[in-house]
Amino acid sequence: MNQSPAIRHALNTKREDDFAQWYQEVISEAEMAEESGVRGCMVIKPWGYGIWERIQRLMDDRIKAAGVQNCYFPLFIPLSYFAKEAEHVEGFAKEMAVVTHHRLVSDGKGGLTPDPEAKLEEPLIVRPTSETVIGAAMSRWVQSWRDLPLLTNQWANVVRWEMRTRMFLRTSEFLWQEGHTAHADRDDAMVETLRALEMYRDFAETELAMPVIAGEKPENERFPGAVATYSIEAMMQDGKALQAGTSHYLGTGFAHAAGIQYQDKEGVQQYCHTTSWGTSTRMIGGLIMTHGDDDGLRVPPMVAPHQIVVLPMLRDGPEDEALLAYCADLTKALSALTAFSEPVRVLLDKRPGKATQKRWSWVKKGVPLVLEIGGRDAAGGQVSMLRRDRLWNAAAKANFVGLAKDEFVARAVAELEDIQASLFNEAKAKRDAKIEKVDSFDALAAFFSEDKRYPGWAEVVWSRPSGAELDAVVQRLKALKLTIRNTPMNGAEVSGPCIFTDRPAVERIYVARAY
Amino acid sequence: MNQSPAIRHALNTKREDDFAQWYQEVISEAEMAEESGVRGCMVIKPWGYGIWERIQRLMDDRIKAAGVQNCYFPLFIPLSYFAKEAEHVEGFAKEMAVVTHHRLVSDGKGGLTPDPEAKLEEPLIVRPTSETVIGAAMSRWVQSWRDLPLLTNQWANVVRWEMRTRMFLRTSEFLWQEGHTAHADRDDAMVETLRALEMYRDFAETELAMPVIAGEKPENERFPGAVATYSIEAMMQDGKALQAGTSHYLGTGFAHAAGIQYQDKEGVQQYCHTTSWGTSTRMIGGLIMTHGDDDGLRVPPMVAPHQIVVLPMLRDGPEDEALLAYCADLTKALSALTAFSEPVRVLLDKRPGKATQKRWSWVKKGVPLVLEIGGRDAAGGQVSMLRRDRLWNAAAKANFVGLAKDEFVARAVAELEDIQASLFNEAKAKRDAKIEKVDSFDALAAFFSEDKRYPGWAEVVWSRPSGAELDAVVQRLKALKLTIRNTPMNGAEVSGPCIFTDRPAVERIYVARAY
Repeated sequence: MNQSPAIRHALNTKREDDFAQWYQEVISEAEMAEESGVRGCMVIKPWGYGIWERIQRLMDDRIKAAGVQNCYFPLFIPLSYFAKEAEHVEGFAKEMAVVTHHRLVSDGKGGLTPDPEAKLEEPLIVRPTSETVIGAAMSRWVQSWRDLPLLTNQWANVVRWEMRTRMFLRTSEFLWQEGHTAHADRDDAMVETLRALEMYRDFAETELAMPVIAGEKPENERFPGAVATYSIEAMMQDGKALQAGTSHYLGTGFAHAAGIQYQDKEGVQQYCHTTSWGTSTRMIGGLIMTHGDDDGLRVPPMVAPHQIVVLPMLRDGPEDEALLAYCADLTKALSALTAFSEPVRVLLDKRPGKATQKRWSWVKKGVPLVLEIGGRDAAGGQVSMLRRDRLWNAAAKANFVGLAKDEFVARAVAELEDIQASLFNEAKAKRDAKIEKVDSFDALAAFFSEDKRYPGWAEVVWSRPSGAELDAVVQRLKALKLTIRNTPMNGAEVSGPCIFTDRPAVERIYVARAY
Repeated sequence: MNQSPAIRHALNTKREDDFAQWYQEVISEAEMAEESGVRGCMVIKPWGYGIWERIQRLMDDRIKAAGVQNCYFPLFIPLSYFAKEAEHVEGFAKEMAVVTHHRLVSDGKGGLTPDPEAKLEEPLIVRPTSETVIGAAMSRWVQSWRDLPLLTNQWANVVRWEMRTRMFLRTSEFLWQEGHTAHADRDDAMVETLRALEMYRDFAETELAMPVIAGEKPENERFPGAVATYSIEAMMQDGKALQAGTSHYLGTGFAHAAGIQYQDKEGVQQYCHTTSWGTSTRMIGGLIMTHGDDDGLRVPPMVAPHQIVVLPMLRDGPEDEALLAYCADLTKALSALTAFSEPVRVLLDKRPGKATQKRWSWVKKGVPLVLEIGGRDAAGGQVSMLRRDRLWNAAAKANFVGLAKDEFVARAVAELEDIQASLFNEAKAKRDAKIEKVDSFDALAAFFSEDKRYPGWAEVVWSRPSGAELDAVVQRLKALKLTIRNTPMNGAEVSGPCIFTDRPAVERIYVARAY
């Protein structure tokens, strides 16, 4: 058992002192991403990209299991496609990268400049989302009711020109999946919209161990062109909300714009009802702010690139050989195990360098289990186990737990399952403690008063105003830097007056500051 | 046994009549891709994208096994980054998409136009390849000899503005992986360059069943900025060459341009030697033109999205229930098998529609094994097996082979392995028959004379001229629409005179028409 005080090198910033600074520091210290030098774009480094690959694979399995087929559509969208859907273009026109030329020439000063001879007749938009270009494809693919539902998805990069960026949360370019489906009628499209929402909820809670509330966004927060927008909302440790996935029922607006029509069973031409739904690298930001602690990231085992790191305490001497053989044997035994229906992902870290420094690098990266093995452990058939979720948990008597090797191998899968569950339970307990029912606008304002550090979410009941009346509510909330997050699905009946309009309330909503 | 003549609906175009037209028709009939309406960009449809996903997963396994780590770098490259490497910019400046604005405004005529107020100070290039932007990251990541080698890869879309496009072979946007590595010295960089080349060769021949020749490109065909470029070259059924992957030793040029330096063991600052290597969706074009036949595509089992399709001959009657139960049972038994170290991928095709039409759709798509099951088969515990590689092979006495179900399950993996091998062997025999040794320039011209339909490749020996002398050779070949493909690795000693310079030859090269 190696109970070195050097485990805790510690980050410079604690969550309670400066959450935003802590977030940046975790990303940097866990080597997840960095600024690229290209405005608003980040470089995703191996540990961050490894988590994204895990998310991709598990989400893709769910998407395929639902009968949705992956395709790939063009990066560029002609301006004319984009302009067809009026609300859509209004919502996106302010933040897009526009390609105007297809060649460079010398600028006569030793540099290069876009070639005026190679100006595009029609500018191309770098996709901010693909409803329009996929709608054009759907209009070719859908002819008859037999072609419906049409269920497609793509994994792609998209660009939204953001003025203020923050890594993983809001970058000009980001990676995502976007599902796009076409249906014969509203009911079928709504079933799909809610299926995707439920898939996201279950993914967030199961794979990411991140509790979320699935619900409908208010009218003012709808996706440009959507009839209804649903989201999953997660609470970060600073009490702010993060929209971690959205699903939209688009009605027939995009079908009209792109001409997505089918002949129904009676031979009549009908417009399709379409949906779209997406999740992105933003989920990684959510994961950091849900599970990170003052020692860095903690990655839920299901999405950890390495679930277990075996760390031999090498001494650069002849005794290393037996130690490495012992560790290789252990790694092999662990790799043969199955957790969460997949082979366990184990890394044997043979890099040179001090074991304490290497340990600290894995602690910061948030590997669920680190096994530190010294020469004495190897000789005695022991391992020292460090559970990242309990590293500085007061409930854990010791940082390291000494175990016989065989005993650890026998319980490794159970440990991983337990870490996955404990991270979810811890996050859920934290979130639930920060949701407060508030029954008047004054109480709302008090709940979010300036002197409160990380207040959380307010749960209120309202009359679901719309139009100008909703705008007024939105403005009052905006003055407090608040937004309406969503109306939870399957909410219980409500009673009492709306805190905004005083009319009888019809549903529950969450109000919060948000990313 | 169902020996319906309706199996062969046949394509409109045969390979021998019009290879280019046949290629387009296979892509269309196999539902792999289609024109998108966006200039030079295609939509990759589920069957084409499914093959790409298989390629990605298997190539990614190889890349990771080599210790290379995946990252993600920005889509946009500032013009100034790009201009740093003189040869590189010269080679690419003619074919790039240039982003100049980040917002649209109303054009006053009901449309939109790039907002003059939102013109970028420095235009951004949509990456045609990422040496420059990854070089900038490497310059931050590499400090000491301990950081080397640095082995990175990304899966990404890239854009090269092509005037004439052809689906999968040459599109303005395409998907690829690009490996980028930095090393302490030339030797280590060359080892990596050739490791990647050999990985590609083995991948092409093993996973894609596509025989290739790995070798060094001549000086005039080097990647812009490279010191040496290597390729794998495959022969299409029309005798033309397809460059299916490249690996470049970049010397220290990109390291100088980006400032990738390290302190060596003696404390001296040194420039890194870098490499890059890539394969793309172009491989799918190669796969089509290597394995396709006059009935459409034939997909090697290792990269087939479905390896086996179970096709019940439904009659829309009560007898379907027992048939479907039989087929579901068969599908389950087959899915439990392991081929090529992965679970066998089986689809039970329960769609409505005529079995003969459905069968033809799978034949065109090139599914390796189709099992057609009628009510009588189900009652008798039989299956009718159609091996796509033998569909119209004269050596196969029958299109369908009737087998007891258990017998088929027992030999299904062996059938898949045999199909993988037979596709490779067939392609290799075809290719080898079309490579001819030619010992003079006149004989070369005769070999490629206009009256020959699909001549193949000429193997010649040369003195490896360079500079102006090489330019002259290139021009003489260009007049015959020919290019030098590569000098094969580990070539045997050569003798005799160079067919171009008459000086003693030093090595063998392949000369061909090419995609």
